Amino acid sequence: MLSQTKRTQVRKGAHKAVQEPQVLFDIIDECLVAHVAIQEAQGPVVIPMLAWRVGDFVYIHGANNSRLLRTLRQAAQTCLTFTLFDGWVLARSAFNHSAHYRSAVVFGQFEVIEDKAEKDRVLNHFVEQIAPGRTQAIRLSNPKELAATTVLRMPLNEASVKISNKDVGDDLADLELPVWAGFIPYRTVVGPLKATAGLHASIPTPDYSAAYGARWEN
Amino acid sequence: MLSQTKRTQVRKGAHKAVQEPQVLFDIIDECLVAHVAIQEAQGPVVIPMLAWRVGDFVYIHGANNSRLLRTLRQAAQTCLTFTLFDGWVLARSAFNHSAHYRSAVVFGQFEVIEDKAEKDRVLNHFVEQIAPGRTQAIRLSNPKELAATTVLRMPLNEASVKISNKDVGDDLADLELPVWAGFIPYRTVVGPLKATAGLHASIPTPDYSAAYGARWEN
Repeated sequence: MLSQTKRTQVRKGAHKAVQEPQVLFDIIDECLVAHVAIQEAQGPVVIPMLAWRVGDFVYIHGANNSRLLRTLRQAAQTCLTFTLFDGWVLARSAFNHSAHYRSAVVFGQFEVIEDKAEKDRVLNHFVEQIAPGRTQAIRLSNPKELAATTVLRMPLNEASVKISNKDVGDDLADLELPVWAGFIPYRTVVGPLKATAGLHASIPTPDYSAAYGARWEN
Repeated sequence: MLSQTKRTQVRKGAHKAVQEPQVLFDIIDECLVAHVAIQEAQGPVVIPMLAWRVGDFVYIHGANNSRLLRTLRQAAQTCLTFTLFDGWVLARSAFNHSAHYRSAVVFGQFEVIEDKAEKDRVLNHFVEQIAPGRTQAIRLSNPKELAATTVLRMPLNEASVKISNKDVGDDLADLELPVWAGFIPYRTVVGPLKATAGLHASIPTPDYSAAYGARWEN
């Protein structure tokens, strides 16, 4: 169960709250983009960052001179939010329109991965998640590249997860109105692979579809 | 041109920065989900919110008792970030892997829309953006519903916009490696409409595809 702290307690729409860590993990694994906040002098700043999970930790990475990473590596309090938008809910009244979504709000502080072998391992884990088998084919990072990269991790132990997937919620008095009600679904389609210009014709196209399940399209 | 302030100056990847307001507007109009940050006692908090644009302003709404809206209506400094993820860039080296995306980071302070007619107008504008013509069919909001809804707006005059859509950026020395390089595109597919359970069979299915262009699928 995810920990219940003051800041993870879902007050609005509490029926949408989910406590199972696996639901959080699935949202992160499908989303892979976190909106990461830091507090600056003028106010909060939210930056989209690639973020991936290995076990109970979430990882982000970037160049050593990134302003965001320089702040986060000081163990600044941060919040990472992951959102998957699943579509619109069209009710019979304007007021009852809503959306389907899955979201996770994760709180904590990052720590730096100093060890180069561990950096290499978690970065390659990320490549494998995007493109299974690819670390067997590409040139892996050299010591200079690893030294230029900051990798941070944060434990996934303080989070609030919400899933909104319910039927249209109309007022009883509106149910007989002669108006269409239902859903506009959104889905993400991944693929097909597109080769870079000038790729040698003898190089076969790999198959990364296993990472994407039903989202993959050839 | 978008204003250049200390906090909107793009330092990392400056070649990805875009100054034209229309590019910002297009990202907001396609995304419609903002990651909105406020500063709380323990640290920043990022909440996904529906956010839509009318002219040079971005709007959010919610119940009057929303914690986030109660903070934002005090003119708290905030940041709204919009991100459209367009896919993975698979280079010949682990280090040069990257992503295609379009993002906008908007700074400012919200103000409350007090006038009920103006609230109604901008809320209906949002419904029309999602489902063109729909405000002609649905029950529009009554005074009680409008009174229960907080609508906030913020001018779109301090933002940094980045578009990453370049070719694979491999090191010269890696170009001859026998490894596939290219892109895993992501795209959002919208539709087809799905009626709610129990919808009367005599009610025709509307056509909202005009709002979605090439993203629409029947």
